[in-house]
Amino acid sequence: MSASSASLPGPAMTKIHRQQFLALNNKRYFNYGGQGPIAQAALEAIHEAQQQVQQRGPFAQSVNQWISETAAATRQSIATELGTQPDAIALTENVTVGCNIALWGISWKAGDHILLSDCEHPGVIAAIAEISRRFQVEVTVCPILGTENPATIAETLAQHLTEKTRLLVISHILWNTGQVLPLAEIINRCHAHTPEPVWVLVDAAQSVGMLPLNLTALPVDFYAFTGHKWWCGPAGIGGLYVRPDRLEQLQPTFVGWRSITLDSSGNPTGWKPNAQRFEVATADYPLLAGLKTAIAIQNQWGTAEQRYQRICQLSQQLWQQLKALPAIRCLCTTPPPSGLVSFQIQSSVGSHRELQTQLVQHLEKQGFFLRTLLNPHSVRACVHYLSLESEVDQLTHAIADFLAAHS
Amino acid sequence: MSASSASLPGPAMTKIHRQQFLALNNKRYFNYGGQGPIAQAALEAIHEAQQQVQQRGPFAQSVNQWISETAAATRQSIATELGTQPDAIALTENVTVGCNIALWGISWKAGDHILLSDCEHPGVIAAIAEISRRFQVEVTVCPILGTENPATIAETLAQHLTEKTRLLVISHILWNTGQVLPLAEIINRCHAHTPEPVWVLVDAAQSVGMLPLNLTALPVDFYAFTGHKWWCGPAGIGGLYVRPDRLEQLQPTFVGWRSITLDSSGNPTGWKPNAQRFEVATADYPLLAGLKTAIAIQNQWGTAEQRYQRICQLSQQLWQQLKALPAIRCLCTTPPPSGLVSFQIQSSVGSHRELQTQLVQHLEKQGFFLRTLLNPHSVRACVHYLSLESEVDQLTHAIADFLAAHS
Repeated sequence: MSASSASLPGPAMTKIHRQQFLALNNKRYFNYGGQGPIAQAALEAIHEAQQQVQQRGPFAQSVNQWISETAAATRQSIATELGTQPDAIALTENVTVGCNIALWGISWKAGDHILLSDCEHPGVIAAIAEISRRFQVEVTVCPILGTENPATIAETLAQHLTEKTRLLVISHILWNTGQVLPLAEIINRCHAHTPEPVWVLVDAAQSVGMLPLNLTALPVDFYAFTGHKWWCGPAGIGGLYVRPDRLEQLQPTFVGWRSITLDSSGNPTGWKPNAQRFEVATADYPLLAGLKTAIAIQNQWGTAEQRYQRICQLSQQLWQQLKALPAIRCLCTTPPPSGLVSFQIQSSVGSHRELQTQLVQHLEKQGFFLRTLLNPHSVRACVHYLSLESEVDQLTHAIADFLAAHS
Repeated sequence: MSASSASLPGPAMTKIHRQQFLALNNKRYFNYGGQGPIAQAALEAIHEAQQQVQQRGPFAQSVNQWISETAAATRQSIATELGTQPDAIALTENVTVGCNIALWGISWKAGDHILLSDCEHPGVIAAIAEISRRFQVEVTVCPILGTENPATIAETLAQHLTEKTRLLVISHILWNTGQVLPLAEIINRCHAHTPEPVWVLVDAAQSVGMLPLNLTALPVDFYAFTGHKWWCGPAGIGGLYVRPDRLEQLQPTFVGWRSITLDSSGNPTGWKPNAQRFEVATADYPLLAGLKTAIAIQNQWGTAEQRYQRICQLSQQLWQQLKALPAIRCLCTTPPPSGLVSFQIQSSVGSHRELQTQLVQHLEKQGFFLRTLLNPHSVRACVHYLSLESEVDQLTHAIADFLAAHS
């Protein structure tokens, strides 16, 4: 499946492709891990869908038909990218809702145990804390930050499973260091755990749209994602993959008319036969058209394998250049296997935290968009296949200039 | 507060005002209770916000600032319409999510009792059924369908409260008959109930944007609403009002970064100090601008009192005309005090259900947009202050023609 470097679309094609993205025309963008830019065609698809809904309805039999068809097509498009079937996909507002659906859908007993890593997102941590409080579930955090050897990470996580562990919550790609976790090995160890298999909920915020995926081959239980980061779709639409043999084992929590079937008198008769049972009610349906268009545009540049390979080329370039700056320490000691490159300023003058905040503010004024992270305190620069080598060079120079002025 | 008929904006102003709504230009629209048409300016506000986000970011400090300010302004706009403070408003994707937040946020004990009416929406019924299953909560349904005397409704509901009742779930306006329930009286009876006060969760899907509201004066506990029906906002944004002294008594369930506060290392430290604790994560923020614009446009035509008065004038016109048709039975025996006018076909030829379905399909082909309801089997026509008397006349004639052809 891997493409050789020679087969990647060249810089000329990338430059043409980039012209579709308004956000990339007036800045040097390195916040893909926060939100990807959206192509004008995807924005127009949203706007056009909004107009169509007004033209035909808004509430009309023909609009209901359009919503149903568009949702099916978008679900198919997502499923194809994830290597699974549309029936396994619940559409959600964002990745966090997807995580909540899995967390609240498990039949918790007091004393059950949830394991998570020390690199999970605060929103997910807070959801787990509330589960813990409500159901007297024990939660422990496995330290993996700074462990770069995949085999060691899998082993460390396995060592933290207990007899009471029912769920591991883990990111596929760590949002702080950009490390890609050995998910297949982690899941295999969890599923082989005794006395009971441990289910795995994956926060795929950074992996969907970044990594080539085949969820049919990866026996993950729950995989929550968003369209608005590496897929460059609109904010406000994401999803949850539920492994088909978990469908009947996970209870819907937030429930509405989209979750259920009705009898001829309008009484609920049961859950939808697929992952749509986890969907609730009215949403901004035109976003469906936007996400479908966004995914198609990703594939116009290259395959998932090609996009990932190009991302890694660029993140290696950035990592090497940053590493060469004397006051910079990258969080990863080897080139990060993803588009996330995080680093710290090591300075004798004042706190590196303050300098990092100043750097990000300074760079935004110069047209470079990065962000700070709080855990660990660092600066994160993301590269996409949409990024240009020249942008990476310019970023390094801008950072070097800032450091020179502040040393 | 009530405006005299003479002070209402006249038909000429309504005709000019209507030109802002693309959906109203090519059809005769009677599905406001399903979804209101959106003004072009509100659609443009969404599109413009999408473009602005791309121009500035999408992920940037200036965009975060914009989101924060726009959310605050929209929350203020909603709060003003509802007669409350922005801190009491949680923004949600739709009314059903609002209901779910309240339902799942109560600390249920086995044996607790929930009372609901027999006119609630299937999505809400299904959510309550899942609460019942998870927490061994008893649910009973109080029959109010067909009871038109408000005092009788309040009395009937009160009679169905038990010693174990903790929550009443009720619509402010019944989505099938269009009746407006005597909410103040119902809430007073619930709060005065012994041994424990009963909380009241209101499904306000049909009342927000239809009725003049003052939630500060109405001691409702939870009031869930949507922007996309009578406010004519975009689909995908609504909210939940949480009475301030219930804030600490209702637990957040689905949780994300928008729910919480963080310490300087990014660790969750607690809930947001207001109803934002019930919000989860990334949403389609440009919809905020759309809803704010939509609400402003409502107020350009007239005050909430004027809009409601006009709605009632038009629904009375429609009700009287329909009532005069021999084969039609309106669900209400007096003019409905809202914009929802539902009726059944009483035919000697075949089932009225089939005829009703045929009628709606036939009318949609003729450019009249109505819907069927399943409970009770009926046809629902909605009038807004945006409706024209001539449209109402045309609808009656079209129904009469259909009936003549099918009698």
